Amino acid sequence: MIIKVGISNRHVHLTKEIYFKLFGKEELEKVRDLDQPGQYASNSFVSIRSGSRIIDNVRVVGPLRNYNQVEISRTDAIKLKVNPPVRDSGDISHSAPIILIGPKGSVALPEGLILATRHIHITKEELKKYGFDGKQKVAVLVNGEKGGIIDNIKFKVLDTAFLTLHLDTDEGNAFDLQSGDEVTLIKSLGSDTNEIKK
Amino acid sequence: MIIKVGISNRHVHLTKEIYFKLFGKEELEKVRDLDQPGQYASNSFVSIRSGSRIIDNVRVVGPLRNYNQVEISRTDAIKLKVNPPVRDSGDISHSAPIILIGPKGSVALPEGLILATRHIHITKEELKKYGFDGKQKVAVLVNGEKGGIIDNIKFKVLDTAFLTLHLDTDEGNAFDLQSGDEVTLIKSLGSDTNEIKK
Repeated sequence: MIIKVGISNRHVHLTKEIYFKLFGKEELEKVRDLDQPGQYASNSFVSIRSGSRIIDNVRVVGPLRNYNQVEISRTDAIKLKVNPPVRDSGDISHSAPIILIGPKGSVALPEGLILATRHIHITKEELKKYGFDGKQKVAVLVNGEKGGIIDNIKFKVLDTAFLTLHLDTDEGNAFDLQSGDEVTLIKSLGSDTNEIKK
Repeated sequence: MIIKVGISNRHVHLTKEIYFKLFGKEELEKVRDLDQPGQYASNSFVSIRSGSRIIDNVRVVGPLRNYNQVEISRTDAIKLKVNPPVRDSGDISHSAPIILIGPKGSVALPEGLILATRHIHITKEELKKYGFDGKQKVAVLVNGEKGGIIDNIKFKVLDTAFLTLHLDTDEGNAFDLQSGDEVTLIKSLGSDTNEIKK
C-alpha cells in the first residue's frame, strides 16, 4: 500500500480566546487550504519563546480549536532549549509550557508544546478497506539514498480525511522527503517497545 | 551487533591556504578531541553564505586537510536555499558551491558543500571480526518512540577508528538520538536501489 507524505512545519492551534489576546481580533483569515479537509493556513503568525530563546513566524493553523497547542520539531526544541513530549494532537495534558507573542499581546501557556506523534490521516472506510483496526501502529518504507523505515506511526481516524502520513520537518529532512512524495506502508517494527537503549 | 552513535553538527574542513585567507594565521587551535583519533574541534568559526542566506558559527574541524569541505544538514540546506549532493567525505568533485566568511577574509568555494553519507568509522580488524567486507552498505535499528531503521550506511575503513555511526543533526533529531546512544547493526534494506518514488 502506497501512501502520500505531508511534511508539517512548526505551527500553532489556538482557541478563540487566546487568538483574541494575541491578535486583538476574532476572525482568523484563510490564505490556503491544507491537505486535510477544513484545515487551512492563516496569515496570522506568532513568535514562540522560552527563556531568552525565540522562534519567529510560527503560523496559526485554522480553524480555531478548543485547545492551544504548539507543534515543533526536535531541531526547534534544541534551539528553544525545551524538552516537549511526543504526543498525539490534542493530548496536551502535562506537555511543556511555552510563551506565545502576537502583535497585540502575549500569553504564557502552562502546557501545549509538543512534538507530534507520526500519524496517518485516514477515514473509517479506508481503514476497513485496507484491513486495519486503527489501533495498531504501523511503519513506512522510504526509498532513496536517505531511505529507511519510519516506525511507530498511529492512525488518526476521522469522518473526512485525505489519506496522508504526517511527519515533522526533522523526519522529512532526515529521509529527504517532501510533501507529495510516496512511501510504502508496512508492519510496525515494534521499536517503541524494545528494551535496548534507543 | 550494537554500535554507538555520534551526531555531527554542521562543520567545515579547510586547507592551510584557505584557513590562512579566512583567519590570517597558520595554526588551528585544538579545544577538544572528537571521537575519531586525531580529529579535534577548533576554536575557529566561519559563516557560510549563499546569496543573501547565511549561517554563522560553523566550526572548523582539525587537523587541516588537503581539500575544503562544508558538511551541512538538509535543514541547513533549506535555510541557505541550496541543494548539495549526498557525498562521502572527500568526494567533493561537482558538489555545491558556498561562500566562507572568516574574521580576516572570505572565499568563494566553487565546490565543497555536501550532505554527508551516513557512515560507520571502523578498522580493518573490526570489519573482519564482524564478517563484513567493507563494501556492502548496512542499516541500523533504532529503538524508541521515534524509532525505525536508518538505511544505506557505508563503512569508512581506517587504520585507527573509534567504532561509531556518524549521522547528521536531522537524522539524530528525527530519531531522537544523541551522541553516545546505541543502535543495532542490521542488513541493508536496499532502499537506495528501489524504483518506487522515495
